[in-house]
Amino acid sequence: MAKLKGNLLYGQSGGPTSVINASAFGVIDEARKQSEFIDEVIIMRHGIKGALNEDFIFINEQTEEDIQLLKHTPGSAFGSVRFKLPDFREDDTSYLRLLFIFKKYNIRYFLYNGGNDSMDTCSKIADYFDHINYECYIMGVPKTIDNDLPFTDHTPGFGSAAKFVANTMMEISYDMLAYPNGKVTIVEIMGRHAGWLTASSAIAGLSGFGPDLIYLPEIPFSIERFKKEVSEIYKKKKQCLVAVSEGISNEEGIFISSSSGLKDAFGHFQLGGVASKLATTVSADLGIPSRSVEFGSTQRAASHLQSLTDVQEAIEVGRQAVLAAIAKHTNLMVVMHRASEGPYQITYKLHALDQCANTEKKVPKNMINAKGNGITKDFIDYVLPLIQGENTPVYKDGIQQFSKMK
Amino acid sequence: MAKLKGNLLYGQSGGPTSVINASAFGVIDEARKQSEFIDEVIIMRHGIKGALNEDFIFINEQTEEDIQLLKHTPGSAFGSVRFKLPDFREDDTSYLRLLFIFKKYNIRYFLYNGGNDSMDTCSKIADYFDHINYECYIMGVPKTIDNDLPFTDHTPGFGSAAKFVANTMMEISYDMLAYPNGKVTIVEIMGRHAGWLTASSAIAGLSGFGPDLIYLPEIPFSIERFKKEVSEIYKKKKQCLVAVSEGISNEEGIFISSSSGLKDAFGHFQLGGVASKLATTVSADLGIPSRSVEFGSTQRAASHLQSLTDVQEAIEVGRQAVLAAIAKHTNLMVVMHRASEGPYQITYKLHALDQCANTEKKVPKNMINAKGNGITKDFIDYVLPLIQGENTPVYKDGIQQFSKMK
Repeated sequence: MAKLKGNLLYGQSGGPTSVINASAFGVIDEARKQSEFIDEVIIMRHGIKGALNEDFIFINEQTEEDIQLLKHTPGSAFGSVRFKLPDFREDDTSYLRLLFIFKKYNIRYFLYNGGNDSMDTCSKIADYFDHINYECYIMGVPKTIDNDLPFTDHTPGFGSAAKFVANTMMEISYDMLAYPNGKVTIVEIMGRHAGWLTASSAIAGLSGFGPDLIYLPEIPFSIERFKKEVSEIYKKKKQCLVAVSEGISNEEGIFISSSSGLKDAFGHFQLGGVASKLATTVSADLGIPSRSVEFGSTQRAASHLQSLTDVQEAIEVGRQAVLAAIAKHTNLMVVMHRASEGPYQITYKLHALDQCANTEKKVPKNMINAKGNGITKDFIDYVLPLIQGENTPVYKDGIQQFSKMK
Repeated sequence: MAKLKGNLLYGQSGGPTSVINASAFGVIDEARKQSEFIDEVIIMRHGIKGALNEDFIFINEQTEEDIQLLKHTPGSAFGSVRFKLPDFREDDTSYLRLLFIFKKYNIRYFLYNGGNDSMDTCSKIADYFDHINYECYIMGVPKTIDNDLPFTDHTPGFGSAAKFVANTMMEISYDMLAYPNGKVTIVEIMGRHAGWLTASSAIAGLSGFGPDLIYLPEIPFSIERFKKEVSEIYKKKKQCLVAVSEGISNEEGIFISSSSGLKDAFGHFQLGGVASKLATTVSADLGIPSRSVEFGSTQRAASHLQSLTDVQEAIEVGRQAVLAAIAKHTNLMVVMHRASEGPYQITYKLHALDQCANTEKKVPKNMINAKGNGITKDFIDYVLPLIQGENTPVYKDGIQQFSKMK
């Protein structure tokens, strides 16, 4: 098999995680080792839009310090994008432009780091290049705090978000003990259709300080049942801590969220405000003092509390994508397989991109309790290995140091 | 001067901080060293109510592990209270009960850990015991994330909250860079009348990733000016990060917060919902996508990101209170004096309790910028030493370990 030498193009897409840049580090670091195949790592600014706009960051122009800091930098250090490519058979404008750019920069390896929607983009590009016979090896690098990508045991980014949620819920729970006549506290956690991250709040319970009720989008939400369950707990404990997914919806599938009706570029409704809405209901209908907490982007950006396991795996999926691409695999996503439970061990495999795209892996029934307001031991067994270890931040003058790409 | 031997009674009052239990540790640890004066440390459950209800925690019955974990435990490990004592000259019912309990348990040292309102309680008890000639040495131990106690350079609890706010604002800011056409993000930060904690969000700016606008309760808030300032920044940057104090009010002194009209036991209005209200205004009136983040109790409970300087000082104010009490000082609060700027150095002094009570120290003019929408270098110079160092949490299985008092 003839060796192919060229440049590697990498980009980030979709909502950031606190470790997506660790995957970028894995890609960069592995690519530098593979100089027989890869001349240079070029990074698209704002994902695929960067390629269309010829807006690139050249890794050879960055300082080593900024490259190393990627392991501690949240957000998307190179910018992200929400951009849906059309089917090239219907409209090949963008594809022709991509082909021009890929040829101009001799891009022979293309790695795209994202969630479901991004894997769709990645797969479409692979299909097009295959169709026109442009030799380029295309790999998906998974990421999402939502943990909803299929065919992978879990997704980089989830473990750190879960660790932040678990530890913060513990803190909120312990803080609530201050007063004997407490409040109902409702914490809103990210997760549009899959409740993995909201479920992770249950880890806090292992310490004795966890949520009393957990509502996932997998279970249709009933306001009446919610009020009954909150009342019962409040009657007993004089306080109640609730974890609720932003994406809960009623029996008819309508979001409980006070949605603004706005949609993002992928056509998803913008969510938010569920906790606040439910807190108002508790105060008004039950006459119980209540308050809401909305972590917002903090939960996906908390680089100050990363799971070391997650960071290491995020780096490794980046490396594996490079290795697979230079081995001339294409149109695949790196997936993680849990080879062993005790000790926890992950092996890396590859899976067809189109199957990974546009499908959401939800929390299975065996991980949700019978009442639909909490989780089971199966979930704890699954999630606990993912939050192990701490990736101590690089502090200077009491604040973190982040990568600053030129 | 005859040596007085008896028990030491300690309690916590008002809103928790992430380091109030570190002060408890300081009290306990110093008291154990002073066995010539102190037989045992007894702790009131839920502050002064614990004394009235004879509801005590005995330190001799706790494990050493639980005592050491106080340095890493947020919230009020012994419960807190919001309870206002009447003037004993008008109603001495509670005071007679306290006297009975103090005599029963031979309480000769009384330490109360709290903010402005708690210092009022502490001072009233000291006045009463002085009035009836019951020999008991009474010291206030300061705490509050609000940093609004007078006569002290700063307050234990503030540094850790400031460190959490600064680092989290950095993360939110970096996360916002992901998309070129961003949003207006409005973050609500605690602080009823004093903007110290909201101002601390500015520390994030030292990294290049900080808030664009900061609104403190010290400056009357104008919705029209706010909209103009947000528009200008959004026009330039296509995004805007705003830090806003929960306690901002208009020219007439009316809170902007969508207050429920509910008051706490001290007669303070319950706040919250400012960020959400302003985000709605930005979306509706300016047509700019916006979202709000409300840290809620996380900012005062984030034991996973404590300032080591703050923890050490919190321990020390506890120790100093014990030392002052056994030296027969009474009706005083431990205060911190900044003896030197470079290197930063604190000396501990004492100040009359009644002067510390019920007065709020606000952010002075020289620390607020001319436009009233940001801070000056004077503030940064003041705050930066307070967030230095990290108090690494005790993790087990990926989650923190907290003290569990029997």
